[in-house]
Amino acid sequence: MRVLAFAGSLRSGSLNRKLLAVAVETLRGKAEVDLLDLREVPMPIYDGDLEASDGLPEGAKRFRQRIAAAEALLIVTPEYNNSIPGGLKNTIDWASRRPDQPFKGKPVLLLSASPGPFGGVRSVMALRLSLASLMAVVIPNTVSVGRADQAFDESGALKDPKQRQSVEHACAELLRFTAALKG
Amino acid sequence: MRVLAFAGSLRSGSLNRKLLAVAVETLRGKAEVDLLDLREVPMPIYDGDLEASDGLPEGAKRFRQRIAAAEALLIVTPEYNNSIPGGLKNTIDWASRRPDQPFKGKPVLLLSASPGPFGGVRSVMALRLSLASLMAVVIPNTVSVGRADQAFDESGALKDPKQRQSVEHACAELLRFTAALKG
Amino acid sequence: MRVLAFAGSLRSGSLNRKLLAVAVETLRGKAEVDLLDLREVPMPIYDGDLEASDGLPEGAKRFRQRIAAAEALLIVTPEYNNSIPGGLKNTIDWASRRPDQPFKGKPVLLLSASPGPFGGVRSVMALRLSLASLMAVVIPNTVSVGRADQAFDESGALKDPKQRQSVEHACAELLRFTAALKG
Amino acid sequence: MRVLAFAGSLRSGSLNRKLLAVAVETLRGKAEVDLLDLREVPMPIYDGDLEASDGLPEGAKRFRQRIAAAEALLIVTPEYNNSIPGGLKNTIDWASRRPDQPFKGKPVLLLSASPGPFGGVRSVMALRLSLASLMAVVIPNTVSVGRADQAFDESGALKDPKQRQSVEHACAELLRFTAALKG
Repeated sequence: MRVLAFAGSLRSGSLNRKLLAVAVETLRGKAEVDLLDLREVPMPIYDGDLEASDGLPEGAKRFRQRIAAAEALLIVTPEYNNSIPGGLKNTIDWASRRPDQPFKGKPVLLLSASPGPFGGVRSVMALRLSLASLMAVVIPNTVSVGRADQAFDESGALKDPKQRQSVEHACAELLRFTAALKG
Repeated sequence: MRVLAFAGSLRSGSLNRKLLAVAVETLRGKAEVDLLDLREVPMPIYDGDLEASDGLPEGAKRFRQRIAAAEALLIVTPEYNNSIPGGLKNTIDWASRRPDQPFKGKPVLLLSASPGPFGGVRSVMALRLSLASLMAVVIPNTVSVGRADQAFDESGALKDPKQRQSVEHACAELLRFTAALKG
Repeated sequence: MRVLAFAGSLRSGSLNRKLLAVAVETLRGKAEVDLLDLREVPMPIYDGDLEASDGLPEGAKRFRQRIAAAEALLIVTPEYNNSIPGGLKNTIDWASRRPDQPFKGKPVLLLSASPGPFGGVRSVMALRLSLASLMAVVIPNTVSVGRADQAFDESGALKDPKQRQSVEHACAELLRFTAALKG
Repeated sequence: MRVLAFAGSLRSGSLNRKLLAVAVETLRGKAEVDLLDLREVPMPIYDGDLEASDGLPEGAKRFRQRIAAAEALLIVTPEYNNSIPGGLKNTIDWASRRPDQPFKGKPVLLLSASPGPFGGVRSVMALRLSLASLMAVVIPNTVSVGRADQAFDESGALKDPKQRQSVEHACAELLRFTAALKG
């Protein structure tokens, strides 16, 4: 089983990359993880005129292929201004162009982290609604890590054993959904 | 009174630009309208590393100045995948960087248009929540024009007199809020 | 396979009951449908003091049993003031009390109908988020019927063949999810 | 200036009542506060048949009068299942019946408290959207108190000086909006 995993921010030291690393570690051994850095698939701001004249940009094509080649997605998102980061939403907007938008039927696990107390929970809500409209199967489990600047120890592990367990359980659920729905 | 007015999509022929034109026409004579095309203020995808090394990009600086110079905002948004277009959200993400984020206290009128039956109403909802977190005063009035590919006559006016009236009333409310709150 | 099906409004002539009838008709023969009228399970407004002194009210107990006895749920919701009807939310609030809240793992299909143009789409969004927090598996498919006072013919069928097909497809997806996830 | 203030839960010992008391204390001296306990205005679950046969129930009528007699509202809401408590939403559903729904043009301050880490922030979001559809002026300021079971000292004050200040500032903003908009 192949899982495409990526963080929604571009910044190299982002807290979301740390949470991504924790979840990816959990998945290893149980699934093949295709770890993506969104900087590998740069794309301009979506513009219908640009699409009409030039088609999908290279980055968007490669992003779609990576999604299509996976059986499930793991997205760790920051929250900007109470919602989805514009850049992450922009990758979804390009990737969702018809025909053959690759989100259809894909199980998705959404996680988030932020330095604030609410952990990016509003970004997860907005993403859940947006991805559902693309027929992705966003699983109910989700974990939002607040005060994330203090949540990881030096080895990169989550300090709070309950949060660690929640991430492990959510990852296991992603694999369970994926196995069940492809049957 | 100065109102900054812009559509959330880049495409030249967008239905949102048509609705923007209707609203701007309504405002003329009652307010000074600063009509912005987001293509005038291009900016890259938000990236914290880029901001740390280079500061705000030129486009973001100019966008912030245009917002700061206005007393109210009119935003006409499309809906991409049930939410805010990534590109529009990206401009907000850059413009909102502290200190001196320019949305604070600004009355905002949100309109939307889409070819589908729901008229972009979900994009308006997501924008309302995001802009409120920036202390913008999103006024309760809003108009979402569904089936927008059939909503305008050849002169560019809204065919439905009720919708026309709703847009006029919403624009009047924007000016009323702005006048009252600056008092 | 047993599906619990109910409309979110109490009014006997509600448009949601009409849409419910269409969906139930679609499910018959493929699943056993337990058709519930929320008036059969009356319950007071949720009150923590009442719960502490008297436990769950009879209506809430019976509602929970009906949910627990089903393998999937079909909910057809109206929209009140851009969100979930208070009465429907109240049944969920009572039914969700721990331990043994019965929504966990249950596939749910959400449909909506309203006389307005947007068809209750905002109620579906709010319900999707609320039920996901209860670990229900809200499937991505959903249908919101706008102008619902004109949407049904005299036999009670949906006039628009596309909407009819969407409801049929959504019902089939509910059964597919349910079969796959119980495996 | 008269402010109607109430908590969204019925339970006598609720954390929301504690936060309400803090905010009301802040308002005293600057405004006349009409403190409402929702148990004073009991009403059944909204049912269109009941409304058609009997009109508004007594509790709903009195609730509407209390709203109408105030120039602004302060609502402190809990969060049930990631959204508005059904009981609170039900009072809004009854109170919003046309004609003369009393929310129109009323400035509203939304606060929330919950024992969980996210403080009811999702209930505030859902309420903001619902009340905006009733033309209420939900001010951008809001405070969500997480871990609220540990947030108050023995005198009932908020322990965290930042939160205390946020509540004070939000209350001052409610009064500023109300004064400006009635001008």
